[in-house]
Amino acid sequence: MVVMSTRSTQQSAEGRPEPVGHGSDFLQLDIRDVPDDGKADWLAARLRQAIADGRVAVGSRLPPTRILAAELRLSRGVVTEAYRRLAEDGQVEGRRRGGTVVVAAPFTATGPAARPLPSPAPTERARKAVLPPARQEPPAPLTDDPHDGRPLTDLPRPAQAAWPAEATRAAHFAPPPSPAPPTTTPTPFSSAPTPAVFDALRATPATADFTPGRPDLAAFPRAAWLRAERAVLGGLSAEHLGYGDPRGAPALRRAVAGWVARNRGVRVAPDEVLIVSGTAQALTLLHPVLRAEGLDAVAVEDPGSLGSRQHLQAGGLATPAVPVDEDGVRVDALRATGARAVLLTPAHQFPTGVVTSGERRRELLAWAREGGLILEDDYDAEHRYDRPPVPALRGLLADQVCYLGSVSKLLAPALRIGWMVPPPRHRVPLTDAKRFADLGNAVLPQLVLARLMDSGELERHLRTVRRRHRGRRDAMITALAAHLPGAVVHGASAGLHLTVTYDADVPDTDLAAAALARGVKCHPLSWHRQVPGRPGLVLGYAGSPPGVIAEGVAALGEALRELTR
Amino acid sequence: MVVMSTRSTQQSAEGRPEPVGHGSDFLQLDIRDVPDDGKADWLAARLRQAIADGRVAVGSRLPPTRILAAELRLSRGVVTEAYRRLAEDGQVEGRRRGGTVVVAAPFTATGPAARPLPSPAPTERARKAVLPPARQEPPAPLTDDPHDGRPLTDLPRPAQAAWPAEATRAAHFAPPPSPAPPTTTPTPFSSAPTPAVFDALRATPATADFTPGRPDLAAFPRAAWLRAERAVLGGLSAEHLGYGDPRGAPALRRAVAGWVARNRGVRVAPDEVLIVSGTAQALTLLHPVLRAEGLDAVAVEDPGSLGSRQHLQAGGLATPAVPVDEDGVRVDALRATGARAVLLTPAHQFPTGVVTSGERRRELLAWAREGGLILEDDYDAEHRYDRPPVPALRGLLADQVCYLGSVSKLLAPALRIGWMVPPPRHRVPLTDAKRFADLGNAVLPQLVLARLMDSGELERHLRTVRRRHRGRRDAMITALAAHLPGAVVHGASAGLHLTVTYDADVPDTDLAAAALARGVKCHPLSWHRQVPGRPGLVLGYAGSPPGVIAEGVAALGEALRELTR
Repeated sequence: MVVMSTRSTQQSAEGRPEPVGHGSDFLQLDIRDVPDDGKADWLAARLRQAIADGRVAVGSRLPPTRILAAELRLSRGVVTEAYRRLAEDGQVEGRRRGGTVVVAAPFTATGPAARPLPSPAPTERARKAVLPPARQEPPAPLTDDPHDGRPLTDLPRPAQAAWPAEATRAAHFAPPPSPAPPTTTPTPFSSAPTPAVFDALRATPATADFTPGRPDLAAFPRAAWLRAERAVLGGLSAEHLGYGDPRGAPALRRAVAGWVARNRGVRVAPDEVLIVSGTAQALTLLHPVLRAEGLDAVAVEDPGSLGSRQHLQAGGLATPAVPVDEDGVRVDALRATGARAVLLTPAHQFPTGVVTSGERRRELLAWAREGGLILEDDYDAEHRYDRPPVPALRGLLADQVCYLGSVSKLLAPALRIGWMVPPPRHRVPLTDAKRFADLGNAVLPQLVLARLMDSGELERHLRTVRRRHRGRRDAMITALAAHLPGAVVHGASAGLHLTVTYDADVPDTDLAAAALARGVKCHPLSWHRQVPGRPGLVLGYAGSPPGVIAEGVAALGEALRELTR
Repeated sequence: MVVMSTRSTQQSAEGRPEPVGHGSDFLQLDIRDVPDDGKADWLAARLRQAIADGRVAVGSRLPPTRILAAELRLSRGVVTEAYRRLAEDGQVEGRRRGGTVVVAAPFTATGPAARPLPSPAPTERARKAVLPPARQEPPAPLTDDPHDGRPLTDLPRPAQAAWPAEATRAAHFAPPPSPAPPTTTPTPFSSAPTPAVFDALRATPATADFTPGRPDLAAFPRAAWLRAERAVLGGLSAEHLGYGDPRGAPALRRAVAGWVARNRGVRVAPDEVLIVSGTAQALTLLHPVLRAEGLDAVAVEDPGSLGSRQHLQAGGLATPAVPVDEDGVRVDALRATGARAVLLTPAHQFPTGVVTSGERRRELLAWAREGGLILEDDYDAEHRYDRPPVPALRGLLADQVCYLGSVSKLLAPALRIGWMVPPPRHRVPLTDAKRFADLGNAVLPQLVLARLMDSGELERHLRTVRRRHRGRRDAMITALAAHLPGAVVHGASAGLHLTVTYDADVPDTDLAAAALARGVKCHPLSWHRQVPGRPGLVLGYAGSPPGVIAEGVAALGEALRELTR
């Protein structure tokens, strides 16, 4: 057995990674420190800290639960519970046959411990890196048992998960033929982001598009959609083609009620569901409703979605910032803003990927019970790879939580279909708002979607893309380890994007502009901040094949090296 | 030759109607009154007056132009021009082989001349009616030449245009088995109409649905739609499925630019087109734009669309009423309101059907050139039966006219697709408004619609439904003549609805409620008025087969007789 090293995994004789350590050796855990009560809490806290300060690197495997339990004289259930909590946080993932692997560092309010700036020479820098260099950090092997190292040869390895041979890598990661020209024309990153900045970024051509917020659109189930549309058109009465219920087609409201019950733990009647044109519209519809309750501010997470903030501000609402730490939004800071409403992404915080901890959820619900209103943006909760689902808050406190969901991340943003499950008192005013907005969503796509939800095809689609997204997520983590070795990856256990932060003294807007000049699109993390913090990038991986991810991330690395020179 | 009678057409020996009169006999026109200049104006004015005061009844044929020209010693072109103006007004229609037939009385600010209240016994009342009783008013015969009475036997007669034999009529128009119960539960008509009133009406079951504003939805081109959707899905790049241009898919903006140029005389670049979710959304998007120009009021036509007025008022805009007369909205009254913007339906006024006259168009444009803003709601301009198209105002004054169109009347309201061609200075603020509203319309239906427009399939569809709508329009006029003989029909030369006014001392909301109790849905005219006026009903005919129209109108007649008893 190998004793863990602080910053990287070790190779076994067979070239497969061994667990980073186990038993009492692991992290110098002392059995005398184990408390009588809250053992799982204690262990989870120790593990979180070790991941946060880099003692356990991203890519490492945790010891098998059986072994750690034995060494610490804990029941195996306690260790499993601690691992489960880290998985819920998005920091580790239980790969079915690959053990429990660290996939992301927690996002802390103060940022991770300072790290040395990347040194100019990548080869040298790689040795010091938090993310171990590529050839020392192959992906976790596929094994029969999560906590056993035996290889399993009959399972396919994830696409692009293995490192290419040196020659292939050279071809992949070849630097651009000439140094990128200095960015002389204004880029979307030249000034403070306006609402039109997303249009400008979209209109710029790129070879690697890491814009966050989009699923794998090439996987859109065209054949299933067309089949469902044919069935819908065949069975449609003329009545359906007239002006409809502004709240949405009854068939889709029924289907969504079933969907959120099955997938999000929210049990509602179809009449409680309002169909809208996505979360953007939901926020706009809420303006008059919030004003009618005397609210002129909606607190937002910081970091938090720039787009959502813009949509609230467009309605004249203030958006006080509430910091996010490794447990989620800080409720003490929320109270301090005095805001009576808050927009949250509790299941997978945008952009940090933090999963709101149980304790924080309880604090949030207490705040809401005292009269606070939670707008729960459940934007990508269905996309999780390595952890159990986190039920939506709406299921716990119907009167003070307005739930927002959409197909933008499930199927495609271009469908412009979403849903709200508002508190009962908001149903009528929101129906009026929707009526005045557009008299209700288009009917045909609603009925097609209802069919896909009812038939199970949407869940089937989700399973397919989840597998593919996961492979791309892995490819991006791998590429980041190679090309941005000083960066810290956050929030990769779910969703369609991850966030990297870095220590280099380079504004992330400059880095994003330099990346765009090299044909790589992404969001600078500072776009999604109101309060300045560590620079970083928000990188969507779901839409790009692994080869594009590898080349795009290589270009990001080039851009950062260029700027730090 | 037959000398015209004042109130009805005469039967020829063959049972076909003869022209109502001709030459100097006709309307006692005196050749000595013909002015040296403006002969067509003079003749058109005389004809309008005769139709307005009932001297020439709806259903009558005007004399052949050749004959009237000869008798009045006018050139035939002058008479043709006068007829053309009446056709533009929607008062007469040139049936290709059926001569020029009066199809609607003009809508005047003061209402048509008072008529006797319908007497309780339909048979007796019918003799006195403005609309001649059924057996004396068969439809105009099909002839080779518009102004020649020779029958043409090889052309099909319009469906339901011929009067059924007495026995058939009895079956069709049988009174309900028992008198309708008194309306004890509240109906959508019990109180002043709220925004939710349309939902309430929609939710009420009915056997004849004459709700205005819907085309023949059973004719929706499902096969063509599905074919186009298959082609779109087959050729779609993944890029199209992401977040798109909030102004709409470029393909549809190009197609709409072509459409409005071909069909509405509006020549614009695709970049000047903004795709929206129908006119309702267009009005809502305009709120902030109008406010930014310091406008807090949008004048509206009276009568005018209740729904549009509600959408303006929901944005906090005042909606001063401007009366509509037989030339369109009264520009002197518009000036008197002091409003700097007006919402108009110039091509086919809702609900009166008035076509804005040339003189009134010039006055309106003069008002706009002085700084007035015209919101041109071109809601059903493509549906015309008997008159040449009236070009949209937007084509004449781009800077002061915001054009609004949609597929709600072309295809189906449930598609929720419309377009705006705003003045250039409003393009950017409207794009922002659309972005904040919903980030742009759904893409798939936009691309499908673009394909239907580009391929000519939409125009083909329009020709098909136009034929069908026309037959239903004829069926409704026929039924109204039989069952509401005291009523005056307005605005039947275009669109999907007609308006009837009546003199009986029965509030139209009571009549609509009594009709609903008999299973017939329609809008009371008073819903669409801010200033009280003659009672009436707005009756959509496009969605109902002729048999349903006949039975529904019979029930309306029953209801009115019941209430006047």
